[in-house]
Amino acid sequence: IVDNNMNNFRELFFDLHPTDQIDILNSVTKKQRVIIYKYVKPEEFAEIFQGLELEKQKQYIAEVQQNYAIDVINNMPYDDVADFLAELPETSKELYLSQMDKEEAQEVIHLLKYEDQTAGAIMTTEFVSVSSTETVRNVMERLRHEAPEAETIYYIYVIDTQLKLVGVVSLRDLIISPLDEKIEEVMLSRVKSVETHTDQEEVARIMKKYDFLAVPVTAQGMLVGIVTIDDIMDVVDEETEEDFGEISAVRGSLDTTISSFSAAKKRSPWIIMLMFLGLITAGVIGGFEDTLEEVILLAAFIPLIMDSAGNTGTQALAVVVRGLAIGTVDRSSIGKMLKREFGTGIMLGLICAITLLIIVPVVYPEGGLWLAGIVGVSLFFTLSISTMVGATVPLIINKLKIDPAVASGPFITTINDIMGLLIYFSIATALLDYLPK
Amino acid sequence: IVDNNMNNFRELFFDLHPTDQIDILNSVTKKQRVIIYKYVKPEEFAEIFQGLELEKQKQYIAEVQQNYAIDVINNMPYDDVADFLAELPETSKELYLSQMDKEEAQEVIHLLKYEDQTAGAIMTTEFVSVSSTETVRNVMERLRHEAPEAETIYYIYVIDTQLKLVGVVSLRDLIISPLDEKIEEVMLSRVKSVETHTDQEEVARIMKKYDFLAVPVTAQGMLVGIVTIDDIMDVVDEETEEDFGEISAVRGSLDTTISSFSAAKKRSPWIIMLMFLGLITAGVIGGFEDTLEEVILLAAFIPLIMDSAGNTGTQALAVVVRGLAIGTVDRSSIGKMLKREFGTGIMLGLICAITLLIIVPVVYPEGGLWLAGIVGVSLFFTLSISTMVGATVPLIINKLKIDPAVASGPFITTINDIMGLLIYFSIATALLDYLPK
Repeated sequence: IVDNNMNNFRELFFDLHPTDQIDILNSVTKKQRVIIYKYVKPEEFAEIFQGLELEKQKQYIAEVQQNYAIDVINNMPYDDVADFLAELPETSKELYLSQMDKEEAQEVIHLLKYEDQTAGAIMTTEFVSVSSTETVRNVMERLRHEAPEAETIYYIYVIDTQLKLVGVVSLRDLIISPLDEKIEEVMLSRVKSVETHTDQEEVARIMKKYDFLAVPVTAQGMLVGIVTIDDIMDVVDEETEEDFGEISAVRGSLDTTISSFSAAKKRSPWIIMLMFLGLITAGVIGGFEDTLEEVILLAAFIPLIMDSAGNTGTQALAVVVRGLAIGTVDRSSIGKMLKREFGTGIMLGLICAITLLIIVPVVYPEGGLWLAGIVGVSLFFTLSISTMVGATVPLIINKLKIDPAVASGPFITTINDIMGLLIYFSIATALLDYLPK
Repeated sequence: IVDNNMNNFRELFFDLHPTDQIDILNSVTKKQRVIIYKYVKPEEFAEIFQGLELEKQKQYIAEVQQNYAIDVINNMPYDDVADFLAELPETSKELYLSQMDKEEAQEVIHLLKYEDQTAGAIMTTEFVSVSSTETVRNVMERLRHEAPEAETIYYIYVIDTQLKLVGVVSLRDLIISPLDEKIEEVMLSRVKSVETHTDQEEVARIMKKYDFLAVPVTAQGMLVGIVTIDDIMDVVDEETEEDFGEISAVRGSLDTTISSFSAAKKRSPWIIMLMFLGLITAGVIGGFEDTLEEVILLAAFIPLIMDSAGNTGTQALAVVVRGLAIGTVDRSSIGKMLKREFGTGIMLGLICAITLLIIVPVVYPEGGLWLAGIVGVSLFFTLSISTMVGATVPLIINKLKIDPAVASGPFITTINDIMGLLIYFSIATALLDYLPK
């Protein structure tokens, strides 16, 4: 694709969608990319650069000359510059900021102050705002000039003299309104907005609920930015990835393009940590060696107790993690939720215990009713508790804001395993004298 | 909120966003809803009705009179009518279709023919299309009239005389173009489009990749509809829910608002099914009763083998399920993917085996090196195989298009448990004579 004919390349290349240009950039060698940098002007490359993943941005910016890099950054939207700079070491960040246009640097520094994963951090400051006394004609005329710069022109925000957000007009409403009407007559004055410190997950929830293409961000009532739907799609993906990690202990390693070695390196800490927890479980069984020696058949039901405890725990975990993500579980409903899970756990325990009381004597007649009773009763207590563990742990994590890794599925499963086996062997030991040996 | 003053209610109610109107409708009693139906005209209620969940739609439509219901349906967008009718029994569907406006009924019947979960099934037919020879002025004038009807006016699609899709203009580009320019001069002629039979997940992928707000749907090159971003947000949620179910066996029961009893009813089939599989595992251990009787300490490592097999399997499963969802795993990369997982499994097995060879003799000196050797070697084989099982099963499921429930995390975990314990006890039995008793 990259031959030595610049005009030819430019004609083909700029006929493509920026996303496809990115695909090309990612698929060629470094040598070919250096040729592309020569063919493409910095202001054109800025358009491509802002769509790249952060890792690629860091890689490619190191491949171009400093002047070119500065020009690229000067031509990017503020929010994309802030996202990029936030990932760089302090010294490179300072370097770029000092060489950027003064005004642009100010805006970017301002954006960099917002905490990660909040509306402030993902918003853009390039929006269209008008005064409520302007006419529709006037605004349409302004759109003609501001459209190329703004992130979206499909919502026009109305502010008063103190920059406070007072209304919104969709471009659709603007187009069907008479040209001489004043904005205050066509605008909606009940505007849903978020604050700069609103969590990005909450922003996503509001935008999904109301089918918004953009939502305004305010600070003390003043309009400071907007979050657009394409940013939110990325947030949704990011949060889903997080939730997935929570269920399966692959946090941060869902990447399918890395090598076997890197994958093993990323996954093995989890497996080894869980293996050490497994040694505790081994200790529990080892502690009941005498009981086990008396009734070997008890060992046969270890997997059944473990699996059932793990499965009910994971089910409750998945329900709560998803509920937190889509917003059906919040502060007000936590109590109801826990009561619900408590009831569910007891019922699951009862159902499984009864099933086992019927099945075990048939499958293991040598164990007799006593064995069935021990397994059944243990299962009842284990499932009741493990459902509560699965539901409670993510809630506690969420409340305390500690590293949610400890709430991941395998950890909860292991906790439930240990608890289940303790219950099982304790009951068996207590009833040892009644068991047929 | 609902008092007996109609004007008062209407004023307050219609000042709200439709989504908030839905919240009110869902929070009041049936009696109050019946009053609301009286206060709100069918064509106004249509706006609210189309935003309701399918379950609520079915409930509320039964609460209104037949005439009112027909009027509501006549005033809804075609795609929402089709979605609603698709859920009804054949007889009610026929009834509504026969009483609807002829033209509208035709469109809906057409939409109902598309297969579930394809672009055809989620698209809307209410889009704006123009001819390439029209002027910008002309199109802007048409938008004024068509805007209230169309699902989106932010993209205008350009078709030729055979209705073939030849280009697209964004409203943004239209606004900044001179009024006398022809559409063919401002339009983009490289349009990304999907086919009516394209899977909805693929549509979501394309829209996310290119940050589209809408994508055109074609049949034999002819423009037949568009899919908008709000439909895609719902698809993303739906698919995430599915993937979550796959990992945790809570398929279709992530609902947090149902009662304990309903939750237990929905979750217990999975738990019981898995419990029966657990009985197979019990059978495996029972089969090695003699070996176990000789060396009781072997029982202590049952949980460790099971947990490790389950965890590595679930990790591989999560990576592949997510990869399939976001499109990084496809037909061409499956071979590479499997080779990768094979390597990862072997490395994970090696790392864990070596760790255990060092730890076990320290923790269980009475077992000696032989015990550590058996556990270590078993773990190596178990992890190598369980990683492959976790990666392969979802791929096979995906290929054969059979019910993906059998690929869920707990099922894979149970398969891996059985396999791991078979390996463990087989090795132990073979080496029985060398073990200290």
